[in-house]
Amino acid sequence: MRTGADLAALRERKPLVHQITNYVVMNETANATLSLGALPVMAHAIEEVEEMASVASALVLNIGTLSERWILAMLLAAKAANRAGAPVVLDPVGAGATKLRTETAQRILEESQIAVVRGNQAEVSTLAGREAEIRGVESIGAADSAAELAKVAASALGCVVSVTGPVDHVSDGERLIAVSNGHELLGTVSGTGCMSTAITGCFLAVAADRPLEAAAEALVAFGVAGEDAARDAKGPGTFHANLYDSLYNLDPATLDSKAKVEE
Amino acid sequence: MRTGADLAALRERKPLVHQITNYVVMNETANATLSLGALPVMAHAIEEVEEMASVASALVLNIGTLSERWILAMLLAAKAANRAGAPVVLDPVGAGATKLRTETAQRILEESQIAVVRGNQAEVSTLAGREAEIRGVESIGAADSAAELAKVAASALGCVVSVTGPVDHVSDGERLIAVSNGHELLGTVSGTGCMSTAITGCFLAVAADRPLEAAAEALVAFGVAGEDAARDAKGPGTFHANLYDSLYNLDPATLDSKAKVEE
Amino acid sequence: MRTGADLAALRERKPLVHQITNYVVMNETANATLSLGALPVMAHAIEEVEEMASVASALVLNIGTLSERWILAMLLAAKAANRAGAPVVLDPVGAGATKLRTETAQRILEESQIAVVRGNQAEVSTLAGREAEIRGVESIGAADSAAELAKVAASALGCVVSVTGPVDHVSDGERLIAVSNGHELLGTVSGTGCMSTAITGCFLAVAADRPLEAAAEALVAFGVAGEDAARDAKGPGTFHANLYDSLYNLDPATLDSKAKVEE
Repeated sequence: MRTGADLAALRERKPLVHQITNYVVMNETANATLSLGALPVMAHAIEEVEEMASVASALVLNIGTLSERWILAMLLAAKAANRAGAPVVLDPVGAGATKLRTETAQRILEESQIAVVRGNQAEVSTLAGREAEIRGVESIGAADSAAELAKVAASALGCVVSVTGPVDHVSDGERLIAVSNGHELLGTVSGTGCMSTAITGCFLAVAADRPLEAAAEALVAFGVAGEDAARDAKGPGTFHANLYDSLYNLDPATLDSKAKVEE
Repeated sequence: MRTGADLAALRERKPLVHQITNYVVMNETANATLSLGALPVMAHAIEEVEEMASVASALVLNIGTLSERWILAMLLAAKAANRAGAPVVLDPVGAGATKLRTETAQRILEESQIAVVRGNQAEVSTLAGREAEIRGVESIGAADSAAELAKVAASALGCVVSVTGPVDHVSDGERLIAVSNGHELLGTVSGTGCMSTAITGCFLAVAADRPLEAAAEALVAFGVAGEDAARDAKGPGTFHANLYDSLYNLDPATLDSKAKVEE
Repeated sequence: MRTGADLAALRERKPLVHQITNYVVMNETANATLSLGALPVMAHAIEEVEEMASVASALVLNIGTLSERWILAMLLAAKAANRAGAPVVLDPVGAGATKLRTETAQRILEESQIAVVRGNQAEVSTLAGREAEIRGVESIGAADSAAELAKVAASALGCVVSVTGPVDHVSDGERLIAVSNGHELLGTVSGTGCMSTAITGCFLAVAADRPLEAAAEALVAFGVAGEDAARDAKGPGTFHANLYDSLYNLDPATLDSKAKVEE
């Protein structure tokens, strides 16, 4: 893993990261992307998603607020990104909570090539056909440990899988990387999971040939930013503002020394 | 009223509060809900709203940005919540400003059972058939005093009504509670009215059998948070960030002593 | 130019500024409008846009996230504003990046009367038929200098054009005003361009008969707020929160003395 070097490359190249995401967090994932150093673009119209996806360095799909035309747009964009060779990240927000969300995530996985799935334990369990409990979009419990689940799901889905939680687990079905960076205040701000998915897209944009490492590096970078942001936060609001400062101020030279990673 | 005890229960139970709300404030009401201690979920697709509403502990409908399919989704969700016995809160944003908003609010009130309506003086006047003036979504003036209006509207609409302003008035048509907590900076941030509606949904989720008190408690909690947030704010931006901190740091043990309530 | 006097008038009159804008920045432009002292209203339903636009003092159209019905709503609203004599501002977000965005901006310019176009160099170049390069929604390069472009585009489009960047250039085809206020942190927050468009709408609402000056005054006010916000910011997050504080705290009495303007 070379989180610092990849972050430096990202800030140098400013890759375009096309995001089709939910209404709740659009501003937040755009700002996380921009603070990190990449260029976000939000576009969901059926008439333009293929054009936009085909010039982007990565595509991020997030099913947090769905409707029929957005599902079609996601499928069109994913196929266009596949044709252009750009990596696609999927955030299956709320898979397991409603049939629409479960089936949409499954359909995207079947009809296009996904590089990385980033979700919580319940969402990933649902897609891997394992038991789990979800309340709205928050994971309540799961049959497997997060580490086992990441490995099993990666094999089942044929892509890299990041299961995030107090400790994050990333696997390609063979290797398994645990990332312990982060802070509990991340759980008090809506959309931090979605931000970690967007940042996964950013790292993939500069390391598309190493999706397992890119996915883990993204969680290291986001986790370290979370730790920095918590330092003088008084609660979720100041933490949230600090989080963008911390992403912006991440130092490539020291980032790898702050990584809490086990493989 | 037992604001502290109900807040403690809410943080213990973490009820799921399903919100179908406007694009402008989705992130803000989700974060207010989460900071307070409940679990927000945003879902508006016709294909999933009934499923989501039927597992939620409360449903919040906010007509701030409408379109045809969102109206249908709100009606489906309200009926599903009614069948499941979950309380429904309605925020009639901009009722009186356009025919679409007035008629949509009326239609929701006619076709489903609403536990609490939370609006400004002009919006509530419109629904109660009383005269008022609105500019965009801000109340400019009304024929009745806010206190009279809350009582009259509650009788006319057959539910609890919260009329918020410098002093908030909550009534079920018989009892009338005035809440003086709050701060003028709340008027400088877009969506604080919508947040107070979301928080009304949170308190209803743990006190569905006492809708009048739950509605008043929500305004006490939000008002106290506003007072705390104003303390070292330098304007609307830092106040907004502080507001989530203050909701998160509300202390159930002291909350009732800070309530400025008259009945 | 009389930025201070127009800001004072705006705070006195609190004009309603109707905005049909993209999902990413709705909350941000509403809060910028409110912090400055005007009243924002967001409404996009085909059933209500004409009614809302006809009572507003200005209309802001922003094509940042498009779909078919939103395009129709923008056209209906623009024509209603034209009939009512309210000025219309257009932000052609991403014109040049996809055919849909370019054609939509052109269609709005052809079918309605626009008072001011506010865009970056690549977006304005595209609409003026000049060469430029855009990555997503960020301008990468253009054939003309920003100053030349503003003048050429204003003549070609028959309205005032603001080309924003490190230095902003505003022209009606004859006069050319350069505004050097601002701060580089503005480029690190998503939606600051959209905010400057919303604020252009605010100033037009009180100076509709002087669109060139209103457009330049808006960029002065927003630029000075950016300078103030940067003072104790630690990065994009705290800068973003400070920006609303600074807009709210702009002092009409000293604003003109802080303007960095050349004509």
